[in-house]
Amino acid sequence: MSAKGRLLGIGVGPGDPELITLKALRLLQATPVIGYFVAKAKVAAGQHGNAFGIIAGHLTEAQQRLPMVYPVTTEKLAPPLSYEDIISDFYDTCAEQIAEHLEAGRDVAVICEGDPFFYGSYMYLHDRLASRYLAEVVPGVCSMLGGASVLGIPLVYRNQSLAVLSGVLPADELKQRLAATDAAVVMKLGRNFDKVRGVLDELGLAERAHYVERATMENQRIVPLADVDPMASPYFSLIIVPGEKWQA
Amino acid sequence: MSAKGRLLGIGVGPGDPELITLKALRLLQATPVIGYFVAKAKVAAGQHGNAFGIIAGHLTEAQQRLPMVYPVTTEKLAPPLSYEDIISDFYDTCAEQIAEHLEAGRDVAVICEGDPFFYGSYMYLHDRLASRYLAEVVPGVCSMLGGASVLGIPLVYRNQSLAVLSGVLPADELKQRLAATDAAVVMKLGRNFDKVRGVLDELGLAERAHYVERATMENQRIVPLADVDPMASPYFSLIIVPGEKWQA
Repeated sequence: MSAKGRLLGIGVGPGDPELITLKALRLLQATPVIGYFVAKAKVAAGQHGNAFGIIAGHLTEAQQRLPMVYPVTTEKLAPPLSYEDIISDFYDTCAEQIAEHLEAGRDVAVICEGDPFFYGSYMYLHDRLASRYLAEVVPGVCSMLGGASVLGIPLVYRNQSLAVLSGVLPADELKQRLAATDAAVVMKLGRNFDKVRGVLDELGLAERAHYVERATMENQRIVPLADVDPMASPYFSLIIVPGEKWQA
Repeated sequence: MSAKGRLLGIGVGPGDPELITLKALRLLQATPVIGYFVAKAKVAAGQHGNAFGIIAGHLTEAQQRLPMVYPVTTEKLAPPLSYEDIISDFYDTCAEQIAEHLEAGRDVAVICEGDPFFYGSYMYLHDRLASRYLAEVVPGVCSMLGGASVLGIPLVYRNQSLAVLSGVLPADELKQRLAATDAAVVMKLGRNFDKVRGVLDELGLAERAHYVERATMENQRIVPLADVDPMASPYFSLIIVPGEKWQA
Protein backbone atom coordinates (compact mmCIF):
# COMPACT_ATOMS: atom_id res chain seq x y z
CA MET A 1 0.00 0.00 0.00
CA SER A 2 0.97 3.63 -0.48
CA ALA A 3 2.20 5.81 2.30
CA LYS A 4 -0.42 8.44 1.56
CA GLY A 5 -2.05 10.22 4.44
CA ARG A 6 -5.59 9.65 5.61
CA LEU A 7 -8.37 12.25 5.64
CA LEU A 8 -10.40 12.42 8.84
CA GLY A 9 -13.67 14.31 9.21
CA ILE A 10 -14.15 14.79 12.92
CA GLY A 11 -17.32 15.93 14.62
CA VAL A 12 -16.48 17.86 17.78
CA GLY A 13 -20.05 18.27 19.03
CA PRO A 14 -22.34 21.26 19.52
CA GLY A 15 -20.08 23.55 21.55
CA ASP A 16 -19.46 22.31 25.09
CA PRO A 17 -15.86 21.02 24.91
CA GLU A 18 -16.91 18.06 27.07
CA LEU A 19 -19.36 16.92 24.40
CA ILE A 20 -16.55 15.62 22.21
CA THR A 21 -16.27 11.84 21.93
CA LEU A 22 -13.34 9.75 23.16
CA LYS A 23 -12.67 8.69 19.57
CA ALA A 24 -12.62 12.23 18.20
CA LEU A 25 -10.21 13.29 20.93
CA ARG A 26 -7.89 10.32 20.44
CA LEU A 27 -7.68 10.86 16.68
CA LEU A 28 -7.25 14.62 16.97
CA GLN A 29 -4.33 14.21 19.33
CA ALA A 30 -2.70 11.70 16.97
CA THR A 31 -3.06 13.71 13.76
CA PRO A 32 -0.27 16.04 12.58
CA VAL A 33 -2.42 18.49 10.57
CA ILE A 34 -5.64 20.01 11.91
CA GLY A 35 -7.88 21.71 9.34
CA TYR A 36 -10.76 23.99 10.29
CA PHE A 37 -13.13 26.38 8.60
CA VAL A 38 -13.35 29.90 9.95
CA ALA A 39 -15.17 33.10 9.02
CA LYS A 40 -13.23 36.14 7.81
CA ALA A 41 -14.60 38.25 10.65
CA LYS A 42 -13.26 35.81 13.23
CA VAL A 43 -9.81 35.87 11.68
CA ALA A 44 -9.87 39.67 11.59
CA ALA A 45 -10.67 39.60 15.30
CA GLY A 46 -7.74 37.29 15.95
CA GLN A 47 -10.01 34.31 16.64
CA HIS A 48 -10.10 30.78 15.25
CA GLY A 49 -13.80 30.02 15.16
CA ASN A 50 -16.10 27.85 17.25
CA ALA A 51 -14.96 24.40 16.14
CA PHE A 52 -11.30 25.17 16.77
CA GLY A 53 -12.12 26.71 20.13
CA ILE A 54 -13.71 23.46 21.25
CA ILE A 55 -10.51 21.48 20.76
CA ALA A 56 -7.71 24.06 21.07
CA GLY A 57 -6.84 23.00 24.59
CA HIS A 58 -6.15 19.44 23.47
CA LEU A 59 -3.58 20.24 20.77
CA THR A 60 0.20 20.56 21.01
CA GLU A 61 2.31 23.21 19.32
CA ALA A 62 3.83 20.57 17.08
CA GLN A 63 0.51 19.99 15.35
CA GLN A 64 0.13 22.08 12.22
CA ARG A 65 -2.95 24.32 11.98
CA LEU A 66 -4.62 24.61 8.60
CA PRO A 67 -7.22 27.38 8.77
CA MET A 68 -9.59 27.55 5.79
CA VAL A 69 -11.07 31.05 5.67
CA TYR A 70 -14.47 31.38 3.98
CA PRO A 71 -14.19 33.99 1.19
CA VAL A 72 -17.81 35.11 1.64
CA THR A 73 -20.12 35.48 4.61
CA THR A 74 -23.50 35.50 2.89
CA GLU A 75 -25.16 33.47 0.16
CA LYS A 76 -26.83 36.60 -1.21
CA LEU A 77 -24.39 38.34 -3.52
CA ALA A 78 -25.00 40.99 -6.16
CA PRO A 79 -24.52 39.69 -9.76
CA PRO A 80 -22.23 38.96 -11.49
CA LEU A 81 -20.88 37.52 -8.24
CA SER A 82 -22.19 34.02 -7.55
CA TYR A 83 -22.03 32.40 -4.13
CA GLU A 84 -22.02 28.98 -5.77
CA ASP A 85 -19.00 29.76 -7.96
CA ILE A 86 -17.00 31.48 -5.26
CA ILE A 87 -17.58 28.77 -2.67
CA SER A 88 -16.90 26.02 -5.19
CA ASP A 89 -13.52 27.54 -6.04
CA PHE A 90 -12.82 27.91 -2.34
CA TYR A 91 -13.50 24.23 -1.61
CA ASP A 92 -11.35 23.26 -4.62
CA THR A 93 -8.47 25.25 -3.17
CA CYS A 94 -8.95 23.77 0.31
CA ALA A 95 -9.02 20.25 -1.14
CA GLU A 96 -5.77 20.91 -3.00
CA GLN A 97 -4.08 22.17 0.16
CA ILE A 98 -5.19 19.07 2.03
CA ALA A 99 -4.19 16.79 -0.83
CA GLU A 100 -0.63 18.12 -0.61
CA HIS A 101 -0.40 16.92 2.98
CA LEU A 102 -2.02 13.58 2.13
CA GLU A 103 0.38 13.05 -0.78
CA ALA A 104 3.27 13.74 1.58
CA GLY A 105 1.97 11.00 3.89
CA ARG A 106 0.56 13.28 6.56
CA ASP A 107 -2.91 12.57 7.98
CA VAL A 108 -5.24 15.57 8.03
CA ALA A 109 -8.13 15.93 10.48
CA VAL A 110 -10.82 18.42 9.49
CA ILE A 111 -12.92 19.39 12.48
CA CYS A 112 -16.60 20.26 12.32
CA GLU A 113 -18.99 21.59 14.90
CA GLY A 114 -21.70 19.04 15.44
CA ASP A 115 -21.42 16.20 12.97
CA PRO A 116 -19.45 16.23 9.68
CA PHE A 117 -22.20 14.66 7.55
CA PHE A 118 -25.03 16.72 9.05
CA TYR A 119 -24.73 20.03 7.16
CA GLY A 120 -20.97 20.18 7.82
CA SER A 121 -18.65 21.93 5.36
CA TYR A 122 -16.38 18.89 5.64
CA MET A 123 -18.76 17.15 3.21
CA TYR A 124 -17.48 19.25 0.30
CA LEU A 125 -13.92 18.16 1.00
CA HIS A 126 -15.03 14.54 1.44
CA ASP A 127 -16.76 14.63 -1.95
CA ARG A 128 -13.56 15.95 -3.54
CA LEU A 129 -11.05 13.67 -1.81
CA ALA A 130 -12.64 10.42 -0.60
CA SER A 131 -12.29 8.70 -3.98
CA ARG A 132 -8.53 9.32 -4.01
CA TYR A 133 -7.57 8.95 -0.35
CA LEU A 134 -8.64 6.91 2.62
CA ALA A 135 -11.29 8.98 4.39
CA GLU A 136 -12.91 8.27 7.73
CA VAL A 137 -15.62 10.19 9.53
CA VAL A 138 -16.10 10.34 13.28
CA PRO A 139 -19.72 11.24 14.02
CA GLY A 140 -20.50 13.90 16.60
CA VAL A 141 -23.33 15.14 18.77
CA CYS A 142 -25.34 17.39 16.45
CA SER A 143 -26.55 20.84 17.44
CA MET A 144 -30.25 19.96 17.48
CA LEU A 145 -29.68 17.28 20.13
CA GLY A 146 -27.50 19.70 22.10
CA GLY A 147 -30.44 22.10 21.86
CA ALA A 148 -33.03 19.59 23.05
CA SER A 149 -30.80 18.64 25.99
CA VAL A 150 -30.37 22.18 27.32
CA LEU A 151 -34.06 22.93 26.79
CA GLY A 152 -34.87 19.74 28.71
CA ILE A 153 -37.41 18.73 26.08
CA PRO A 154 -37.84 15.28 24.50
CA LEU A 155 -37.66 15.79 20.74
CA VAL A 156 -39.48 12.79 19.23
CA TYR A 157 -41.52 10.00 20.82
CA ARG A 158 -41.99 6.46 19.64
CA ASN A 159 -43.10 6.48 15.99
CA GLN A 160 -43.28 10.23 15.46
CA SER A 161 -41.72 11.79 12.37
CA LEU A 162 -39.10 14.51 12.62
CA ALA A 163 -38.39 17.14 9.97
CA VAL A 164 -35.11 19.03 9.99
CA LEU A 165 -35.54 22.21 7.99
CA SER A 166 -33.45 25.19 6.96
CA GLY A 167 -34.73 28.64 7.84
CA VAL A 168 -33.58 29.70 4.38
CA LEU A 169 -36.56 27.93 2.77
CA PRO A 170 -39.39 30.12 1.41
CA ALA A 171 -42.30 30.70 3.82
CA ASP A 172 -44.80 28.62 1.84
CA GLU A 173 -42.46 25.64 1.68
CA LEU A 174 -41.67 25.92 5.39
CA LYS A 175 -45.37 26.07 6.14
CA GLN A 176 -46.13 22.99 4.10
CA ARG A 177 -43.32 20.97 5.65
CA LEU A 178 -44.07 22.08 9.22
CA ALA A 179 -47.75 21.26 8.79
CA ALA A 180 -46.92 17.72 7.64
CA THR A 181 -44.62 16.58 10.46
CA ASP A 182 -45.00 15.54 14.11
CA ALA A 183 -41.86 17.32 15.30
CA ALA A 184 -39.44 19.76 13.69
CA VAL A 185 -36.13 21.51 14.08
CA VAL A 186 -35.48 24.70 12.13
CA MET A 187 -31.81 25.51 11.68
CA LYS A 188 -30.01 28.41 9.99
CA LEU A 189 -32.20 31.08 11.50
CA GLY A 190 -30.23 34.33 11.62
CA ARG A 191 -31.97 36.79 9.33
CA ASN A 192 -34.64 34.20 8.56
CA PHE A 193 -35.97 34.26 12.11
CA ASP A 194 -38.91 36.58 11.57
CA LYS A 195 -40.16 34.61 8.57
CA VAL A 196 -39.97 31.33 10.51
CA ARG A 197 -41.76 32.76 13.55
CA GLY A 198 -44.49 34.09 11.27
CA VAL A 199 -45.05 30.64 9.79
CA LEU A 200 -45.17 29.03 13.24
CA ASP A 201 -47.73 31.64 14.30
CA GLU A 202 -49.90 30.95 11.26
CA LEU A 203 -49.83 27.21 11.99
CA GLY A 204 -50.60 27.66 15.67
CA LEU A 205 -47.27 26.05 16.53
CA ALA A 206 -45.62 29.04 18.20
CA GLU A 207 -46.82 27.96 21.66
CA ARG A 208 -45.16 24.59 21.30
CA ALA A 209 -41.93 25.98 19.82
CA HIS A 210 -38.71 26.62 21.76
CA TYR A 211 -35.77 28.82 20.83
CA VAL A 212 -32.15 28.50 21.83
CA GLU A 213 -28.96 30.29 20.77
CA ARG A 214 -25.56 28.61 20.84
CA ALA A 215 -26.83 25.57 22.73
CA THR A 216 -24.25 24.06 25.15
CA MET A 217 -21.78 26.91 24.51
CA GLU A 218 -20.69 29.26 27.27
CA ASN A 219 -22.76 32.10 25.88
CA GLN A 220 -25.88 29.97 25.37
CA ARG A 221 -29.22 31.80 25.59
CA ILE A 222 -32.71 30.37 25.95
CA VAL A 223 -35.36 32.96 25.10
CA PRO A 224 -39.16 32.64 24.76
CA LEU A 225 -39.96 32.67 21.05
CA ALA A 226 -42.09 35.79 21.37
CA ASP A 227 -39.23 37.74 22.97
CA VAL A 228 -36.55 37.05 20.36
CA ASP A 229 -35.19 40.15 18.62
CA PRO A 230 -35.33 39.09 14.96
CA MET A 231 -32.47 41.45 14.10
CA ALA A 232 -30.16 39.87 16.64
CA SER A 233 -30.72 36.15 16.14
CA PRO A 234 -27.36 34.53 15.44
CA TYR A 235 -26.73 31.87 12.83
CA PHE A 236 -26.15 29.30 15.56
CA SER A 237 -29.69 29.41 16.84
CA LEU A 238 -32.41 26.78 16.59
CA ILE A 239 -36.14 26.48 16.87
CA ILE A 240 -37.38 23.16 18.17
CA VAL A 241 -41.00 22.07 17.86
CA PRO A 242 -41.04 18.85 19.91
CA GLY A 243 -43.43 16.00 19.23
CA GLU A 244 -46.56 15.89 21.38
CA LYS A 245 -45.86 14.02 24.59
CA TRP A 246 -46.71 10.36 24.21
CA GLN A 247 -48.47 9.41 27.43
CA ALA A 248 -46.81 6.06 27.89
CA MET B 1 -31.85 23.18 49.22
CA SER B 2 -32.92 19.59 49.66
CA ALA B 3 -30.51 16.72 49.59
CA LYS B 4 -32.49 14.90 46.95
CA GLY B 5 -30.65 13.09 44.22
CA ARG B 6 -30.42 14.22 40.63
CA LEU B 7 -31.74 12.32 37.61
CA LEU B 8 -29.36 12.09 34.66
CA GLY B 9 -30.32 10.93 31.18
CA ILE B 10 -27.09 9.99 29.50
CA GLY B 11 -26.64 9.30 25.80
CA VAL B 12 -23.87 6.76 25.28
CA GLY B 13 -23.78 6.92 21.50
CA PRO B 14 -24.62 4.49 18.70
CA GLY B 15 -22.61 1.46 19.82
CA ASP B 16 -18.85 1.95 19.46
CA PRO B 17 -17.74 2.43 23.10
CA GLU B 18 -15.35 5.16 21.92
CA LEU B 19 -18.29 7.23 20.66
CA ILE B 20 -19.27 8.21 24.18
CA THR B 21 -18.61 11.84 25.15
CA LEU B 22 -16.20 13.00 27.83
CA LYS B 23 -19.14 14.45 29.75
CA ALA B 24 -21.18 11.24 29.67
CA LEU B 25 -18.19 9.25 30.88
CA ARG B 26 -17.35 11.69 33.69
CA LEU B 27 -20.92 11.73 34.98
CA LEU B 28 -21.37 7.96 34.69
CA GLN B 29 -18.26 7.34 36.74
CA ALA B 30 -19.45 9.78 39.41
CA THR B 31 -23.00 8.45 39.77
CA PRO B 32 -23.84 5.79 42.38
CA VAL B 33 -26.85 4.22 40.61
CA ILE B 34 -26.82 3.26 36.93
CA GLY B 35 -30.22 2.50 35.37
CA TYR B 36 -30.64 0.80 32.02
CA PHE B 37 -33.41 -0.71 29.95
CA VAL B 38 -32.98 -4.25 28.75
CA ALA B 39 -35.07 -6.79 26.84
CA LYS B 40 -36.32 -9.95 28.56
CA ALA B 41 -34.53 -12.15 26.03
CA LYS B 42 -31.19 -10.51 26.87
CA VAL B 43 -31.69 -11.06 30.58
CA ALA B 44 -32.64 -14.69 29.94
CA ALA B 45 -29.38 -15.05 28.03
CA GLY B 46 -27.44 -13.56 30.94
CA GLN B 47 -26.78 -10.31 29.06
CA HIS B 48 -27.33 -6.68 29.97
CA GLY B 49 -28.28 -5.11 26.65
CA ASN B 50 -26.48 -2.86 24.20
CA ALA B 51 -26.43 0.38 26.17
CA PHE B 52 -25.00 -1.25 29.28
CA GLY B 53 -22.42 -3.11 27.18
CA ILE B 54 -21.10 0.21 25.89
CA ILE B 55 -20.23 1.48 29.35
CA ALA B 56 -19.75 -1.67 31.44
CA GLY B 57 -15.96 -1.40 31.33
CA HIS B 58 -16.04 2.05 32.90
CA LEU B 59 -18.02 1.15 36.04
CA THR B 60 -16.82 -0.02 39.43
CA GLU B 61 -18.41 -2.77 41.52
CA ALA B 62 -19.49 -0.19 44.07
CA GLN B 63 -21.91 1.38 41.60
CA GLN B 64 -25.38 -0.05 41.90
CA ARG B 65 -26.97 -1.49 38.74
CA LEU B 66 -30.66 -0.85 38.20
CA PRO B 67 -31.84 -2.98 35.26
CA MET B 68 -35.31 -2.14 33.96
CA VAL B 69 -36.60 -5.17 32.06
CA TYR B 70 -39.21 -4.47 29.36
CA PRO B 71 -42.31 -6.59 30.09
CA VAL B 72 -43.15 -6.96 26.37
CA THR B 73 -41.08 -7.27 23.22
CA THR B 74 -43.64 -6.28 20.61
CA GLU B 75 -46.19 -3.51 20.24
CA LYS B 76 -48.64 -5.95 18.61
CA LEU B 77 -50.51 -7.77 21.35
CA ALA B 78 -53.73 -9.75 21.18
CA PRO B 79 -56.66 -8.03 22.98
CA PRO B 80 -57.50 -7.55 25.77
CA LEU B 81 -53.76 -6.99 26.24
CA SER B 82 -52.72 -3.43 25.35
CA TYR B 83 -49.12 -2.47 24.69
CA GLU B 84 -49.89 1.09 25.76
CA ASP B 85 -51.28 0.02 29.15
CA ILE B 86 -48.57 -2.51 29.90
CA ILE B 87 -45.71 -0.20 28.95
CA SER B 88 -47.26 2.72 30.82
CA ASP B 89 -47.46 0.64 34.03
CA PHE B 90 -43.89 -0.47 33.46
CA TYR B 91 -42.58 3.10 33.18
CA ASP B 92 -44.59 4.05 36.29
CA THR B 93 -42.87 1.27 38.21
CA CYS B 94 -39.42 2.23 36.90
CA ALA B 95 -40.02 5.86 37.85
CA GLU B 96 -41.01 4.81 41.37
CA GLN B 97 -37.85 2.72 41.76
CA ILE B 98 -35.73 5.64 40.62
CA ALA B 99 -37.63 8.09 42.83
CA GLU B 100 -36.73 5.98 45.88
CA HIS B 101 -33.04 6.49 45.15
CA LEU B 102 -33.55 10.20 44.45
CA GLU B 103 -35.50 10.65 47.69
CA ALA B 104 -32.63 8.99 49.53
CA GLY B 105 -30.23 11.53 48.02
CA ARG B 106 -28.62 9.21 45.50
CA ASP B 107 -28.11 10.43 41.93
CA VAL B 108 -29.37 8.06 39.25
CA ALA B 109 -27.97 7.95 35.71
CA VAL B 110 -30.17 6.30 33.11
CA ILE B 111 -28.17 5.36 30.05
CA CYS B 112 -29.55 5.36 26.51
CA GLU B 113 -28.10 4.18 23.24
CA GLY B 114 -27.76 7.14 20.94
CA ASP B 115 -29.39 10.22 22.45
CA PRO B 116 -31.91 10.28 25.33
CA PHE B 117 -34.33 12.74 23.68
CA PHE B 118 -34.16 11.14 20.23
CA TYR B 119 -36.58 8.21 20.57
CA GLY B 120 -34.95 7.12 23.85
CA SER B 121 -36.98 5.32 26.52
CA TYR B 122 -35.44 7.70 29.04
CA MET B 123 -37.99 10.28 27.88
CA TYR B 124 -40.81 8.45 29.64
CA LEU B 125 -38.91 8.61 32.93
CA HIS B 126 -38.03 12.26 32.33
CA ASP B 127 -41.70 13.10 31.78
CA ARG B 128 -42.58 11.39 35.07
CA LEU B 129 -39.77 12.75 37.22
CA ALA B 130 -38.36 16.03 35.88
CA SER B 131 -41.03 18.14 37.55
CA ARG B 132 -40.16 16.72 40.97
CA TYR B 133 -36.39 16.29 40.78
CA LEU B 134 -33.46 18.02 39.16
CA ALA B 135 -33.00 16.32 35.80
CA GLU B 136 -30.15 16.80 33.34
CA VAL B 137 -29.67 15.28 29.92
CA VAL B 138 -26.32 14.63 28.26
CA PRO B 139 -26.84 14.44 24.51
CA GLY B 140 -25.22 11.65 22.53
CA VAL B 141 -24.26 10.71 18.99
CA CYS B 142 -27.48 9.37 17.49
CA SER B 143 -27.67 6.15 15.50
CA MET B 144 -28.46 7.81 12.17
CA LEU B 145 -25.23 9.83 12.29
CA GLY B 146 -23.32 6.72 13.32
CA GLY B 147 -24.88 5.08 10.26
CA ALA B 148 -23.94 7.88 7.86
CA SER B 149 -20.36 7.84 9.17
CA VAL B 150 -19.77 4.13 8.59
CA LEU B 151 -21.46 4.30 5.18
CA GLY B 152 -19.18 7.23 4.33
CA ILE B 153 -22.12 9.18 2.95
CA PRO B 154 -22.96 12.85 3.60
CA LEU B 155 -26.54 12.93 4.87
CA VAL B 156 -27.81 16.47 4.13
CA TYR B 157 -26.26 19.34 2.17
CA ARG B 158 -26.73 23.03 2.67
CA ASN B 159 -30.46 23.84 2.78
CA GLN B 160 -31.82 20.36 2.19
CA SER B 161 -34.62 19.02 4.37
CA LEU B 162 -34.24 15.77 6.30
CA ALA B 163 -37.11 13.52 7.37
CA VAL B 164 -36.59 10.98 10.13
CA LEU B 165 -39.29 8.34 9.85
CA SER B 166 -40.32 5.18 11.65
CA GLY B 167 -40.63 2.00 9.60
CA VAL B 168 -43.77 1.29 11.62
CA LEU B 169 -45.72 3.91 9.61
CA PRO B 170 -48.25 2.63 7.04
CA ALA B 171 -46.94 2.32 3.47
CA ASP B 172 -49.03 5.19 2.09
CA GLU B 173 -47.87 7.57 4.81
CA LEU B 174 -44.24 6.53 4.33
CA LYS B 175 -44.60 7.09 0.61
CA GLN B 176 -46.05 10.55 1.04
CA ARG B 177 -43.35 11.61 3.50
CA LEU B 178 -40.48 10.14 1.50
CA ALA B 179 -41.72 11.80 -1.68
CA ALA B 180 -41.78 15.21 0.03
CA THR B 181 -38.26 15.35 1.48
CA ASP B 182 -34.72 15.85 0.14
CA ALA B 183 -33.13 13.25 2.42
CA ALA B 184 -34.50 10.64 4.79
CA VAL B 185 -33.60 8.17 7.49
CA VAL B 186 -35.95 5.27 8.19
CA MET B 187 -35.52 3.75 11.63
CA LYS B 188 -37.24 0.84 13.39
CA LEU B 189 -37.04 -1.49 10.43
CA GLY B 190 -37.08 -5.08 11.72
CA ARG B 191 -40.25 -6.70 10.43
CA ASN B 192 -41.13 -3.48 8.58
CA PHE B 193 -38.20 -3.82 6.21
CA ASP B 194 -40.04 -5.32 3.26
CA LYS B 195 -42.76 -2.67 3.34
CA VAL B 196 -40.18 0.13 3.44
CA ARG B 197 -38.13 -1.34 0.58
CA GLY B 198 -41.31 -1.65 -1.47
CA VAL B 199 -42.10 2.03 -0.98
CA LEU B 200 -38.57 3.05 -1.93
CA ASP B 201 -38.84 0.94 -5.08
CA GLU B 202 -42.13 2.57 -6.04
CA LEU B 203 -40.62 6.02 -5.59
CA GLY B 204 -37.48 5.17 -7.56
CA LEU B 205 -35.41 5.84 -4.44
CA ALA B 206 -34.03 2.34 -3.90
CA GLU B 207 -30.91 3.08 -5.95
CA ARG B 208 -30.04 6.02 -3.72
CA ALA B 209 -30.82 4.21 -0.46
CA HIS B 210 -28.27 2.58 1.83
CA TYR B 211 -28.81 -0.04 4.51
CA VAL B 212 -26.79 -0.69 7.63
CA GLU B 213 -27.29 -2.93 10.67
CA ARG B 214 -25.90 -2.09 14.10
CA ALA B 215 -23.81 0.81 12.80
CA THR B 216 -20.50 1.32 14.69
CA MET B 217 -21.06 -1.86 16.75
CA GLU B 218 -18.68 -4.82 16.50
CA ASN B 219 -21.19 -6.87 14.56
CA GLN B 220 -22.07 -4.04 12.15
CA ARG B 221 -23.19 -5.12 8.66
CA ILE B 222 -23.51 -3.01 5.52
CA VAL B 223 -25.59 -4.78 2.89
CA PRO B 224 -26.90 -3.60 -0.51
CA LEU B 225 -30.60 -2.85 -0.08
CA ALA B 226 -31.59 -5.44 -2.70
CA ASP B 227 -29.72 -8.20 -0.84
CA VAL B 228 -31.26 -7.71 2.60
CA ASP B 229 -33.20 -10.71 3.92
CA PRO B 230 -36.43 -9.07 5.14
CA MET B 231 -36.96 -11.83 7.70
CA ALA B 232 -33.59 -11.23 9.30
CA SER B 233 -33.39 -7.45 9.56
CA PRO B 234 -32.76 -6.51 13.18
CA TYR B 235 -34.44 -3.66 15.01
CA PHE B 236 -31.16 -1.76 15.10
CA SER B 237 -30.98 -1.29 11.37
CA LEU B 238 -31.39 1.87 9.33
CA ILE B 239 -32.10 2.93 5.80
CA ILE B 240 -30.50 6.19 4.76
CA VAL B 241 -31.54 8.09 1.64
CA PRO B 242 -28.94 10.86 1.48
CA GLY B 243 -29.63 14.23 -0.09
CA GLU B 244 -28.45 14.69 -3.66
CA LYS B 245 -24.84 15.84 -3.73
CA TRP B 246 -24.63 19.59 -3.82
CA GLN B 247 -21.91 20.37 -6.34
CA ALA B 248 -20.27 23.15 -4.40
